[in-house]
Amino acid sequence: MNLPPLRDLLEQVSHGTLETAEAERRLMDYLRALPFEDLGFARVDHHRALRQGFPEVILGTGKTPAQVAAIAASIVDRGHSLLVTRTDKLAFAAVKAEVPHATFHDDARAITLQQKDISSGNGIVLVAAAGTSDRPVAEEAVVTAELMGNQVERLYDVGVAGLHRLLSAHDRLTAARVIVVVAGMEGALPSVIGGLVNVPIIAVPTSVGYGASFGGIAALLGMLNSCASGVSVVNIDNGFGAATIASLINHL
Amino acid sequence: MNLPPLRDLLEQVSHGTLETAEAERRLMDYLRALPFEDLGFARVDHHRALRQGFPEVILGTGKTPAQVAAIAASIVDRGHSLLVTRTDKLAFAAVKAEVPHATFHDDARAITLQQKDISSGNGIVLVAAAGTSDRPVAEEAVVTAELMGNQVERLYDVGVAGLHRLLSAHDRLTAARVIVVVAGMEGALPSVIGGLVNVPIIAVPTSVGYGASFGGIAALLGMLNSCASGVSVVNIDNGFGAATIASLINHL
Amino acid sequence: MNLPPLRDLLEQVSHGTLETAEAERRLMDYLRALPFEDLGFARVDHHRALRQGFPEVILGTGKTPAQVAAIAASIVDRGHSLLVTRTDKLAFAAVKAEVPHATFHDDARAITLQQKDISSGNGIVLVAAAGTSDRPVAEEAVVTAELMGNQVERLYDVGVAGLHRLLSAHDRLTAARVIVVVAGMEGALPSVIGGLVNVPIIAVPTSVGYGASFGGIAALLGMLNSCASGVSVVNIDNGFGAATIASLINHL
Amino acid sequence: MNLPPLRDLLEQVSHGTLETAEAERRLMDYLRALPFEDLGFARVDHHRALRQGFPEVILGTGKTPAQVAAIAASIVDRGHSLLVTRTDKLAFAAVKAEVPHATFHDDARAITLQQKDISSGNGIVLVAAAGTSDRPVAEEAVVTAELMGNQVERLYDVGVAGLHRLLSAHDRLTAARVIVVVAGMEGALPSVIGGLVNVPIIAVPTSVGYGASFGGIAALLGMLNSCASGVSVVNIDNGFGAATIASLINHL
Amino acid sequence: MNLPPLRDLLEQVSHGTLETAEAERRLMDYLRALPFEDLGFARVDHHRALRQGFPEVILGTGKTPAQVAAIAASIVDRGHSLLVTRTDKLAFAAVKAEVPHATFHDDARAITLQQKDISSGNGIVLVAAAGTSDRPVAEEAVVTAELMGNQVERLYDVGVAGLHRLLSAHDRLTAARVIVVVAGMEGALPSVIGGLVNVPIIAVPTSVGYGASFGGIAALLGMLNSCASGVSVVNIDNGFGAATIASLINHL
Amino acid sequence: MNLPPLRDLLEQVSHGTLETAEAERRLMDYLRALPFEDLGFARVDHHRALRQGFPEVILGTGKTPAQVAAIAASIVDRGHSLLVTRTDKLAFAAVKAEVPHATFHDDARAITLQQKDISSGNGIVLVAAAGTSDRPVAEEAVVTAELMGNQVERLYDVGVAGLHRLLSAHDRLTAARVIVVVAGMEGALPSVIGGLVNVPIIAVPTSVGYGASFGGIAALLGMLNSCASGVSVVNIDNGFGAATIASLINHL
Amino acid sequence: MNLPPLRDLLEQVSHGTLETAEAERRLMDYLRALPFEDLGFARVDHHRALRQGFPEVILGTGKTPAQVAAIAASIVDRGHSLLVTRTDKLAFAAVKAEVPHATFHDDARAITLQQKDISSGNGIVLVAAAGTSDRPVAEEAVVTAELMGNQVERLYDVGVAGLHRLLSAHDRLTAARVIVVVAGMEGALPSVIGGLVNVPIIAVPTSVGYGASFGGIAALLGMLNSCASGVSVVNIDNGFGAATIASLINHL
Amino acid sequence: MNLPPLRDLLEQVSHGTLETAEAERRLMDYLRALPFEDLGFARVDHHRALRQGFPEVILGTGKTPAQVAAIAASIVDRGHSLLVTRTDKLAFAAVKAEVPHATFHDDARAITLQQKDISSGNGIVLVAAAGTSDRPVAEEAVVTAELMGNQVERLYDVGVAGLHRLLSAHDRLTAARVIVVVAGMEGALPSVIGGLVNVPIIAVPTSVGYGASFGGIAALLGMLNSCASGVSVVNIDNGFGAATIASLINHL
Repeated sequence: MNLPPLRDLLEQVSHGTLETAEAERRLMDYLRALPFEDLGFARVDHHRALRQGFPEVILGTGKTPAQVAAIAASIVDRGHSLLVTRTDKLAFAAVKAEVPHATFHDDARAITLQQKDISSGNGIVLVAAAGTSDRPVAEEAVVTAELMGNQVERLYDVGVAGLHRLLSAHDRLTAARVIVVVAGMEGALPSVIGGLVNVPIIAVPTSVGYGASFGGIAALLGMLNSCASGVSVVNIDNGFGAATIASLINHL
Repeated sequence: MNLPPLRDLLEQVSHGTLETAEAERRLMDYLRALPFEDLGFARVDHHRALRQGFPEVILGTGKTPAQVAAIAASIVDRGHSLLVTRTDKLAFAAVKAEVPHATFHDDARAITLQQKDISSGNGIVLVAAAGTSDRPVAEEAVVTAELMGNQVERLYDVGVAGLHRLLSAHDRLTAARVIVVVAGMEGALPSVIGGLVNVPIIAVPTSVGYGASFGGIAALLGMLNSCASGVSVVNIDNGFGAATIASLINHL
Repeated sequence: MNLPPLRDLLEQVSHGTLETAEAERRLMDYLRALPFEDLGFARVDHHRALRQGFPEVILGTGKTPAQVAAIAASIVDRGHSLLVTRTDKLAFAAVKAEVPHATFHDDARAITLQQKDISSGNGIVLVAAAGTSDRPVAEEAVVTAELMGNQVERLYDVGVAGLHRLLSAHDRLTAARVIVVVAGMEGALPSVIGGLVNVPIIAVPTSVGYGASFGGIAALLGMLNSCASGVSVVNIDNGFGAATIASLINHL
Repeated sequence: MNLPPLRDLLEQVSHGTLETAEAERRLMDYLRALPFEDLGFARVDHHRALRQGFPEVILGTGKTPAQVAAIAASIVDRGHSLLVTRTDKLAFAAVKAEVPHATFHDDARAITLQQKDISSGNGIVLVAAAGTSDRPVAEEAVVTAELMGNQVERLYDVGVAGLHRLLSAHDRLTAARVIVVVAGMEGALPSVIGGLVNVPIIAVPTSVGYGASFGGIAALLGMLNSCASGVSVVNIDNGFGAATIASLINHL
Repeated sequence: MNLPPLRDLLEQVSHGTLETAEAERRLMDYLRALPFEDLGFARVDHHRALRQGFPEVILGTGKTPAQVAAIAASIVDRGHSLLVTRTDKLAFAAVKAEVPHATFHDDARAITLQQKDISSGNGIVLVAAAGTSDRPVAEEAVVTAELMGNQVERLYDVGVAGLHRLLSAHDRLTAARVIVVVAGMEGALPSVIGGLVNVPIIAVPTSVGYGASFGGIAALLGMLNSCASGVSVVNIDNGFGAATIASLINHL
Repeated sequence: MNLPPLRDLLEQVSHGTLETAEAERRLMDYLRALPFEDLGFARVDHHRALRQGFPEVILGTGKTPAQVAAIAASIVDRGHSLLVTRTDKLAFAAVKAEVPHATFHDDARAITLQQKDISSGNGIVLVAAAGTSDRPVAEEAVVTAELMGNQVERLYDVGVAGLHRLLSAHDRLTAARVIVVVAGMEGALPSVIGGLVNVPIIAVPTSVGYGASFGGIAALLGMLNSCASGVSVVNIDNGFGAATIASLINHL
Repeated sequence: MNLPPLRDLLEQVSHGTLETAEAERRLMDYLRALPFEDLGFARVDHHRALRQGFPEVILGTGKTPAQVAAIAASIVDRGHSLLVTRTDKLAFAAVKAEVPHATFHDDARAITLQQKDISSGNGIVLVAAAGTSDRPVAEEAVVTAELMGNQVERLYDVGVAGLHRLLSAHDRLTAARVIVVVAGMEGALPSVIGGLVNVPIIAVPTSVGYGASFGGIAALLGMLNSCASGVSVVNIDNGFGAATIASLINHL
Repeated sequence: MNLPPLRDLLEQVSHGTLETAEAERRLMDYLRALPFEDLGFARVDHHRALRQGFPEVILGTGKTPAQVAAIAASIVDRGHSLLVTRTDKLAFAAVKAEVPHATFHDDARAITLQQKDISSGNGIVLVAAAGTSDRPVAEEAVVTAELMGNQVERLYDVGVAGLHRLLSAHDRLTAARVIVVVAGMEGALPSVIGGLVNVPIIAVPTSVGYGASFGGIAALLGMLNSCASGVSVVNIDNGFGAATIASLINHL
């Protein structure tokens, strides 16, 4: 840690150019104004980007295209990679004007621009999805994990009612370092995959289904009650969150 | 249909030994007093036993041992087979005094006595259970289905997190005519079995689990949202009900 | 089962044109790549159609008309019968261009084309519905069951608050081999029908109602708690699922 | 309305024996201390007993036998009829010491003593119950309604899965002026009875059932969604409340 | 009860013009075809209108204007009064073409036409509402109760947070024979009114509110748990149902 | 309390110009017509405005622009300050025509006009918000509290996942007399702030979030279970209600 | 703030007895080890007691009598007042051995010992309760508020179904500076009191009730949806929390 | 993979000692009987222990002491480490007789015996807990993680309402490779820790709390809605599951 002002102050005290009473007052002011995390790392946001391997992410929901574009420009200007989630083509048009090299991912409803601030993960992040309707959430996870520096593989349409498709992918499952499993309806896929492999599984319930699926609650409860070990769960439709955790694990 | 009193009455009218006004009055009384189903079948309870292949069943919950024993004796005296569900050893002692040949099934918490009023089913009723904790509910299904005249097989401890055990029983699954699938926690087993076979599956969620299993709600929702076809669901822990449906199907 | 490549391989070994080591390696590759169900039946999809009496079904929800039409064409081309559920007239127009003989069922929101791949069921599948608002779900069941080769009868508008209509249909109820019962609001119809007949009843709660019907939860709970035996339940509004189960039973 | 003190006061003012300022002060005090209902009726509690046809009722839950006995004695001493609900034999022993003629109703878990303060209702209050397990709640309704001066009839064990028993009681149903219908599980009985008669039906869901009955919620929802007109609902297991409403209606 | 065909048949038997065997067969056919309620009343629908004081009601939800108009015309043609609930101006235009004298009630979202088939109730039905947002549901109750032959009074905007408005209407409350109380949010109004009067109260929770009102659940639960006696509850927003019950009571 | 008419009446009685019988009748009329709160305060509405520091507030939801404008004009005409919540620009246009000086607050979705009827609070009301999406609810609180005469400060974007921003505002937190804390998602901010300060905290859950946030239920439950003391909770999104309570406390 | 070590350090630097590099290292260590709140106040716990007017409180639930007694002794030894909530007589016996002057409050299930560390509040804290069953929660609030230095008054048994009792206490309600309102069942009391007064109301739902009260959820929802302003809510049965907030407000 | 029988078979075919038709039949039998996972790993259970780093775990709930002891002995005999969760002293006595060196962990309600089959993890697993009541669940996680070969540290009593305790442990938080965070009530601790560090966080909601904590649902929802990245969630009270996931990550 390098805190020049503090050393300056101490040296002024040492040289007699600053009185101890005034020095104490200044130190107290400094401490009062100091955000806690600054005690450990010089500038918080920059430090987070360095340590997390990824800067702040823009949640598109509830923001105007102009707002998304402005924040996006600010992030990219600092040399950071850009990720906008839950966005649309309108917002992308606005971002494009500010960040010409940004890419829009239709399925994932995401905007990205990868810059040189991302470190590479150690293994493969596999994103498995039960049905075709789970694809948007799975794609959000794929786009997020890729942008965060991970080698990502897709394994889609492997619902538990057609086991042979899943079982024939056994090699791909065991080759992954961490698996994001996306499923709606009864949410059984993480349990079945959890019984086949021994890597951490991040389960993402989706709001796919109708009636007693209750917008993803059935899948969420199924995953929380998984009889397989190694399964932890994120919020309904939270492909981004799952990929972030997978990336954290893959960068360990 | 054979309704002697009605023919008698009509013949008395025909023979002039009964006036039409009096005959009409008696007919009206008969109709008013008549339980509806009696219009089609002579004595309802007897008829139900004949058609359903099984007489009235005693739910042990909330009944004293003496009450259970009294009803049991009444059923057995009529030559009907006996089934008491959700009962215990105390009630069995009381039943034993009245029905010496009755049997107590510890795991299933049931009392039975099979008599000659039961017709045989056509195929095998397979009762599959995910975990050891699901066994009491599964056993209730087994005991019920056997008493109702079905050939029953058990397939226990085949939870989806250990797929190989389930897959190695593929022949037994496909050999069944109807399958009762008992599972708690995430309730995924019916979906997986439903993808392997093409016979009707009666899914029984159990209250096994803790926390977000909510006493079986997670399993119930999982089963209602099954992505496999052929899966219908009964109430939580209702092994008896599932076996009754399976027996109905197996007797078709 | 007929596995020519396997026999070929064995004969090559027998004829000495293939070494055992190489033969073992090829067998292992074959086993690894083999989807599980292929171990028992040559080509899975074809086999499923043969055994289930019905090929894959297209869920219209969330698919574009073009996607629906493409999948429909692919299914029909293989000689399979076509069923698209939860679809609309726009999708039908697209399907029509590819599959000119397809039919649109307005009430059932379904597209069908029956081909020669369907075996006939053994008895009558009766579809009973409580109110006029339950009709779309009931029609989905009717269309599905008919396409799957069953003789289907409708018994609509027999809500429990007007018992006489239901009771006057007693003969039709007892003539059925399996009954699909569709009801919203309090969902009491399966219990009443279950007390009148002794065939399997597949209960379908509908999202009909308002306020404390909670989108079908009241009906679902009512059916799960049915005091009549023989009643199993599928998801809210799942007329297709109920008909599939009824067809399975009717083909036993 | 007859308020002597007010007239006295006014006459004293008129006669000059009371100054207007002092009279105003006394009036204001009177108004401030006055409970609102006293403006219309001299003594509230007495008036309530007269108009409701019944005095305060003791809820046994959470009260010690001594407390129950003390309140019971106080009520009986004023010449009022006594009703203690949700009580037990221990409390009855304590009450018996104070109120020797009190009666304990085992099934209804109630203590009663009828005195001469009760007016008679106009017709029959019928209490119908679906199953034997609903009996305690039904008995609470019966005991309450009888004590409140109503002619009460019981119609038990008429669950909807055995319609003939209910239909054979058609005359008794139509003879009632108001019907209390007690049912657990799917709570369908009020709908069926509501379709047979045209008198007000007070539906009481019971906590009878297991699993997805959720302690009476399934029955409660079923009743709130009744497709029959004329059905209103009280809280789960609230036989007392239903009888109170039935008595109010029967005394109109 | 007057069943001429039955007497004819019996007299033919008596006169020897009909054989007993044929007579028995005809009787059986008659019984089988007979709707249950016909045993007690000649023609069910006509009888219901006579006894209930009101014929079938049309629920507008989910019906096209043409359907509503057709059913309305059919009802009015038979001389019955017309009530369409949960409808709109489009449907009214269609009805108007068939039933020129029909009236549209904007607030109540109802169409009515009163004919001479309605008997008058005995007292006043008071409809009380807590807030201005509860007005549509209250108006549905008012329009329904008036059409059913009741003298109806409105008491609106008497929420419990402004007690003086409610208390100043004490005379109107006590003058009613039955009170429909409509309230959203916390649903406390029935409890307060129930403590002031001694007539039956039909409580109608409304979906008015936001957040933790959960579309009327908070009000519904509040009413089911009312600490006042005499309060029974109908479904959320069910002004029609409450008025029907109130009318039943008011016609006793 | 000053009730001139009462003294007039008494003096007329004293002077013999009014007979005691007539005086008694008039007094009774007065009492009957009297709203309860009038016993303590001359004119209720005026008194409420004086004591609460704020007159009636208009909830915009469900009111037409014309209705909002009419009520607004009536309030402003009496010299009262105006607050319309949950409104929009259309309603503002209508209000503007009647109340030219009214202001529209876009973020807060509120219309205000401050007049001279508002007393000043004693300290600072701080409105803290966790995320940018919570801003509309927070702004409703700010606008409400300011209009009610409070000095208000904003502290936005201080979610618990970035503690340093919150901690660096420690001085502003401790300087407040009461804090409104607005948060969605997990609703943890009130707990953290409650551990840093010792002033009353009014927690407002927002419907911000998705999936298992269930429209604000997660945040609501989090706040009700706060491990910090001093935290009470209002309904989801109820920024207005929280500000009203904060203002009450700040005016003590 | 008085931080002697810091000044010592600075003076050593000033006097040249400590090098700036070493001083910087020590400062950094100090900052790293420093709990945040220590930056503003010397010793956190002592400071909290001074500012909150109350030290740490012992929650009796889940602690052994010995554990409760040990913590109690430690608190009392430091001269702090003692409050143990949700405790029982067994724990009190253990506490009594360590803290002989402690008092046990039977209704409130609390142990207290007031010492001289408590400042007095400014006005009256009124604790109102709807029914006799709400008394334990109300008493917890009373005992807590009294120990925290407030003048507390009780107003019990003022449920909304007997309005006159509440209205006759109007003077006591308006005399309070803050009101804690405790109610179960429908939880309507805060709304009614909120309409009568203009002071902050802390509403405490209780788990009193049965059936659809769902352990206090009905009351909780009722209070969150209160139509009266000035009402905020705490957790079910949380009399302690409500009193803490009331005391905070009363000490402002 | 080494499948001697397959090579034998092939060599017999090659040598002409086995006909191809018979060889094909045998192969087919072999394939049908083969559990899937056996295709990839010789003996499944052994393989699981090797790859997972931990053998089967005994869930004590619902097992008799004798059953627990028998399974424990069987596991230990194979040289595997022993873990029994959710057990008690009675079961431990039984286990002790079979496995003399087993240890009972009182707080964690667990029995363990570490053998040499466990590999060491790479970093520190930190188990943080919010309150003293969360300790049993946290201890279950600690005992589990230690037995699975991880270096474990405890950080207890760091609830968010006393931030300084958490902040002062900043170094310990950042030193961990994976953090298990255990919290009840509002479940906010994972969000706060998630904002301070950048390692995977496994959040465990506990059933600690009362009223609206709903047995851990409030904490569960709070954690699923965490605004911090890196947080995934397991079932309520599932300390074992969280530790298993943490160990998986720590062994990567």
